Amino acid sequence: MTASQSSNSDSRDLRPVRIERGYTKYAEGSVLMSTGDTKIICTASVEDGVPYFLRGEDQGWLTAEYSLLPRSTQDRTTRAAARGKRSGRTREIQRLIGRSLRAVIDLEAMDERTIWIDCDVIQADGGTRTASITGGFVALYDSVDYMMEEGIVSENPLKEFTAATSVGIVDEDYVLDLCYEEDSSADVDMNVVMTESGKFIEIQGAAEESPYTRSDLDKMLELAEDGIQGLIDAQKRALELI
Amino acid sequence: MTASQSSNSDSRDLRPVRIERGYTKYAEGSVLMSTGDTKIICTASVEDGVPYFLRGEDQGWLTAEYSLLPRSTQDRTTRAAARGKRSGRTREIQRLIGRSLRAVIDLEAMDERTIWIDCDVIQADGGTRTASITGGFVALYDSVDYMMEEGIVSENPLKEFTAATSVGIVDEDYVLDLCYEEDSSADVDMNVVMTESGKFIEIQGAAEESPYTRSDLDKMLELAEDGIQGLIDAQKRALELI
Amino acid sequence: MTASQSSNSDSRDLRPVRIERGYTKYAEGSVLMSTGDTKIICTASVEDGVPYFLRGEDQGWLTAEYSLLPRSTQDRTTRAAARGKRSGRTREIQRLIGRSLRAVIDLEAMDERTIWIDCDVIQADGGTRTASITGGFVALYDSVDYMMEEGIVSENPLKEFTAATSVGIVDEDYVLDLCYEEDSSADVDMNVVMTESGKFIEIQGAAEESPYTRSDLDKMLELAEDGIQGLIDAQKRALELI
Amino acid sequence: MTASQSSNSDSRDLRPVRIERGYTKYAEGSVLMSTGDTKIICTASVEDGVPYFLRGEDQGWLTAEYSLLPRSTQDRTTRAAARGKRSGRTREIQRLIGRSLRAVIDLEAMDERTIWIDCDVIQADGGTRTASITGGFVALYDSVDYMMEEGIVSENPLKEFTAATSVGIVDEDYVLDLCYEEDSSADVDMNVVMTESGKFIEIQGAAEESPYTRSDLDKMLELAEDGIQGLIDAQKRALELI
Amino acid sequence: MTASQSSNSDSRDLRPVRIERGYTKYAEGSVLMSTGDTKIICTASVEDGVPYFLRGEDQGWLTAEYSLLPRSTQDRTTRAAARGKRSGRTREIQRLIGRSLRAVIDLEAMDERTIWIDCDVIQADGGTRTASITGGFVALYDSVDYMMEEGIVSENPLKEFTAATSVGIVDEDYVLDLCYEEDSSADVDMNVVMTESGKFIEIQGAAEESPYTRSDLDKMLELAEDGIQGLIDAQKRALELI
Amino acid sequence: MTASQSSNSDSRDLRPVRIERGYTKYAEGSVLMSTGDTKIICTASVEDGVPYFLRGEDQGWLTAEYSLLPRSTQDRTTRAAARGKRSGRTREIQRLIGRSLRAVIDLEAMDERTIWIDCDVIQADGGTRTASITGGFVALYDSVDYMMEEGIVSENPLKEFTAATSVGIVDEDYVLDLCYEEDSSADVDMNVVMTESGKFIEIQGAAEESPYTRSDLDKMLELAEDGIQGLIDAQKRALELI
Repeated sequence: MTASQSSNSDSRDLRPVRIERGYTKYAEGSVLMSTGDTKIICTASVEDGVPYFLRGEDQGWLTAEYSLLPRSTQDRTTRAAARGKRSGRTREIQRLIGRSLRAVIDLEAMDERTIWIDCDVIQADGGTRTASITGGFVALYDSVDYMMEEGIVSENPLKEFTAATSVGIVDEDYVLDLCYEEDSSADVDMNVVMTESGKFIEIQGAAEESPYTRSDLDKMLELAEDGIQGLIDAQKRALELI
Repeated sequence: MTASQSSNSDSRDLRPVRIERGYTKYAEGSVLMSTGDTKIICTASVEDGVPYFLRGEDQGWLTAEYSLLPRSTQDRTTRAAARGKRSGRTREIQRLIGRSLRAVIDLEAMDERTIWIDCDVIQADGGTRTASITGGFVALYDSVDYMMEEGIVSENPLKEFTAATSVGIVDEDYVLDLCYEEDSSADVDMNVVMTESGKFIEIQGAAEESPYTRSDLDKMLELAEDGIQGLIDAQKRALELI
Repeated sequence: MTASQSSNSDSRDLRPVRIERGYTKYAEGSVLMSTGDTKIICTASVEDGVPYFLRGEDQGWLTAEYSLLPRSTQDRTTRAAARGKRSGRTREIQRLIGRSLRAVIDLEAMDERTIWIDCDVIQADGGTRTASITGGFVALYDSVDYMMEEGIVSENPLKEFTAATSVGIVDEDYVLDLCYEEDSSADVDMNVVMTESGKFIEIQGAAEESPYTRSDLDKMLELAEDGIQGLIDAQKRALELI
Repeated sequence: MTASQSSNSDSRDLRPVRIERGYTKYAEGSVLMSTGDTKIICTASVEDGVPYFLRGEDQGWLTAEYSLLPRSTQDRTTRAAARGKRSGRTREIQRLIGRSLRAVIDLEAMDERTIWIDCDVIQADGGTRTASITGGFVALYDSVDYMMEEGIVSENPLKEFTAATSVGIVDEDYVLDLCYEEDSSADVDMNVVMTESGKFIEIQGAAEESPYTRSDLDKMLELAEDGIQGLIDAQKRALELI
Repeated sequence: MTASQSSNSDSRDLRPVRIERGYTKYAEGSVLMSTGDTKIICTASVEDGVPYFLRGEDQGWLTAEYSLLPRSTQDRTTRAAARGKRSGRTREIQRLIGRSLRAVIDLEAMDERTIWIDCDVIQADGGTRTASITGGFVALYDSVDYMMEEGIVSENPLKEFTAATSVGIVDEDYVLDLCYEEDSSADVDMNVVMTESGKFIEIQGAAEESPYTRSDLDKMLELAEDGIQGLIDAQKRALELI
Repeated sequence: MTASQSSNSDSRDLRPVRIERGYTKYAEGSVLMSTGDTKIICTASVEDGVPYFLRGEDQGWLTAEYSLLPRSTQDRTTRAAARGKRSGRTREIQRLIGRSLRAVIDLEAMDERTIWIDCDVIQADGGTRTASITGGFVALYDSVDYMMEEGIVSENPLKEFTAATSVGIVDEDYVLDLCYEEDSSADVDMNVVMTESGKFIEIQGAAEESPYTRSDLDKMLELAEDGIQGLIDAQKRALELI
């Protein structure tokens, strides 16, 4: 139930990937996703009904929530529940995860049903939002299997595999799958979500201080594409499809 | 104090732009930014002091807030104050505006001082986040002038002009500066923030349902670059620099 | 679409009034109300349905919301959304606006329908609550016209014109329509809402430090009555009724 | 320690008043204020320090809080703590109480010290806000005595007695000190706060549906003045000053 | 309507108990409960309907709310409404009160009906949570009587009398019914809720710093049992049953 | 680093225990605590400073936070952050964990330093609050070791080992260490926290519907004592002390 890819310290390689399915017993899909020292519990939960704005539309919904355990980080992070609200960063990340996974599922083939993707980071060493998408897809895949087996849906609503990674420019070097230390000193930080067929679901590239050129963009996108194909291989091995 | 660009209904052109400075009297910079039917009051306010996380770092800060007036939209939008919190969308937009404008200002040349960019949308017809950046930059420019005149800063901290626009794919056509109706039916929606020298500060391109190819990306970026040069011209005319 | 009244610096006169209709395009009524340097966007929005406490009562409702743009004031005001709640002052003002306008509309002639009056202050130089009532009435008038034209209501539910102004005692002098500076140094500050027929809807007169006599009260009410008749003239000119 | 005034069912008379001092043992002033079936625990608490906006101004502050016990009303009222915020009505009332009592105390004679007036309604039968002022003044008086005895202040900061009552028009009749049933059916409802010397601290007169004339106003103010003199007598008897 | 038990200063005796029924006029049950200087208004309110999680289960519900008046304590306590939420302590106490009273009522004999027990502490000198249970039971008893008389329920749902008290170890001495001063210096503090037939509904015994032995536990439970029988006698006298 | 105890299906035995230290890398103490199917990540974080109420008291503090991952439960639980506040149950549990662990640590030997115990339940099958105490103690032990090694404290502030378990009455049978199914149908549910020397830190025993006798209490406490000694053995094996 577990796929690994051997570690490689070259900055243009992915960090070691490990995808452990069946991590907890109640969720319809439950994955412990690791990339380097980043570790995230991704679960998929299937519920009847859809949010208010979709009632009567005869389609399903997929939404994501993201959270850091307080001591997943170097210094303890205050819980959102203690502050009484989620930070802007948290909301932005969960919107990205939801949007990315909705792009590869046919919501109309799900009837009025909601899939919750919960991504709880237990150790954060950079790339938590992209690892949430990569791991979340595997949990989603398992929950779709569950729905097929139970006869909840009659045809598979998944359209394609998808995975995500980060690329950036650190000390004038292009870097794939940035760890926290690299991310902190990056001049440019870009998250890329792609499908197995090589199409973009989302590109988010922000210059921290020094804006980047068109040529930088091209090189980063090539690197991201390679990385994402490697991640999709890892997803398939974990799912015992290859 | 006002710059306009003649209207053009071709979908690959910008909508008519109008930048009216000195719109309200108390703010250090105050602009009514219009692009098509989208109208936003952008103000820049200079305050002493910096947020907690920067105290003692001997640098300044720039932050943005964004809000829709309830009846800026087709149907009335509930106020954030009535809900008791800002939506995820609002937080995501204000983070983008802040990040984009911080990329063209030298925070270390500002001492411990904060510039607030407030973007209050009075009429929303698509592209409010990018128009907030374009108009917000002009308000920022005026507030920097104020600081120079008052001797609050000794050298100009602005590094370059910046503006932003949206591009997308609607009915298999590439479209620049999407209005609300185009945006609602777009397959791909991309926001691009660039500097006058043609570098990217931010690219955010999301596929709503159909992922997009590399060639789509290239064509959208070209369109965005043309649009942004047009917007920077409009900013300069409003500032009476050309 | 615009009514002005020539400026007059005498403290017992109204400040220059300007009422600009059709200010934004989506609302059923939309007015830019100015009195002196105070400027407020007042919109009226018509929605089906009524609040919970009126369901099944076969009558309509009118409610108001009031907000200051952060830089409508000399120093930047924190947004209610950032604090997570509205201040006591804001709630008190929106209750006053709602109560005042409900007094001149026959709610039973509206069926189960709600009119929202949104008053967003873009520049605050005193008298924002009374100017919200005066401008809000014009937006309400236009929204009622819209409902009549669309056949939403069969008879006009408006009973009378209404407007509001402030009066006070500043340095032992009676003052009409106080600007911010006068208001700050006033010993007594009174808001008066009257109908065209000279009846009171609301009187709110508070001594800041020195309680006032019955004779002071009488003189302030006379001054208010004159001012309100001037404001109702301005409303009618803006509505092209005179 | 208790003052009563014999009951009288004439609508132009006060309801029976009862002011019981020393109701609870910890507060510096603690009063059970009754007017008819309205019963309120009013306490005055003296604390060192002033709110943020007054620090370093070398003056004191007085502020009020008001709350209904859930079952003080005919039907159970939800607690503000359960809703997570106070209603607009509550905030408006506590601002009125604070403003009224601040008008009769010399804040500069108190050093940097805050007096909290807490008004907790245990039985609500109309007129709770005015009874809070009348009873709150007695608690305040006792807390000032405490400060004098303890040498916390050297001279008495109280300037005058004050009390408050309501007047209104019910079924075309002028009514003093409205109970809940009268208040519910009143066409006009006015709260008046006066000093012993006959000056107004606050007048708040709102027409529920039918605006009122100048002559109505005059008659209501006369009735209020009589009532308030009766209440000040009751305060003095409770304080054993007459 | 009132039951007292003569005071006794021995630390192994209850403090003087006073239970005054009919304290306020609107609630179906309304009691002023005093034990020593602790005074609590306990009301029982009967409402139609049950919370969401019980709808359609054909049974009733009983829930409790607890609150301190700000100046019920030595120093003024901030209102939960001002903080926007209830403290952990408050929530823990109201859960205990609700649980304890639900244990002696047959919810299935109440149809879909909710009884709210509101416990508002007006003077707090230790033991407020246990006095809330003892006094709340009497209010509950009266509200059940009301339901019987009105024919709202056909058979009495109460199963047994219940009361509660505290016991503890202070300076190596076993103490019953701790006042605030004793509670503050106690090494062990235990709350015990028992029925008339001598069974436990709840035991909560916490060591503040020094864990306690089994023999300590036994002695404290004996003391509690005696105290609770005394309290049940006081309840019955107040209810005029003995 | 891991201690297990062989499974035993007898209801008077503990479920299999597994304590895995060093589970995440940033926290000063980090444990994956399992008892049966209940799994909790317990971390201990050491921070400089103490909460406001202890400043200047020259002592340390220990506090706990507790949270369920949304899909740790059979049905998905809404996040506290989505509701904007923690439930009463959560607050009650974290107060219990904090109180229990503070009873075995000498806060005065820690200087002004705070230890946070975070208990994040990843799989909930009953007994999460007691397992949080048992696992939290091991994380605390490791964080104290860290402070000793770093020279942050000079002497070991831990006074004794402590662990906790639940006991109850299910179908007239005494049961130790209840799983969710047993807990749901229990007539009595009791949590017991004891030290190695056999003293009680906390007893919380609640009857769900049927109050329990003194003899029931005695039998449950014996069972609890046996279980806790077994858990302390498991803690020591995990810490490699036996």
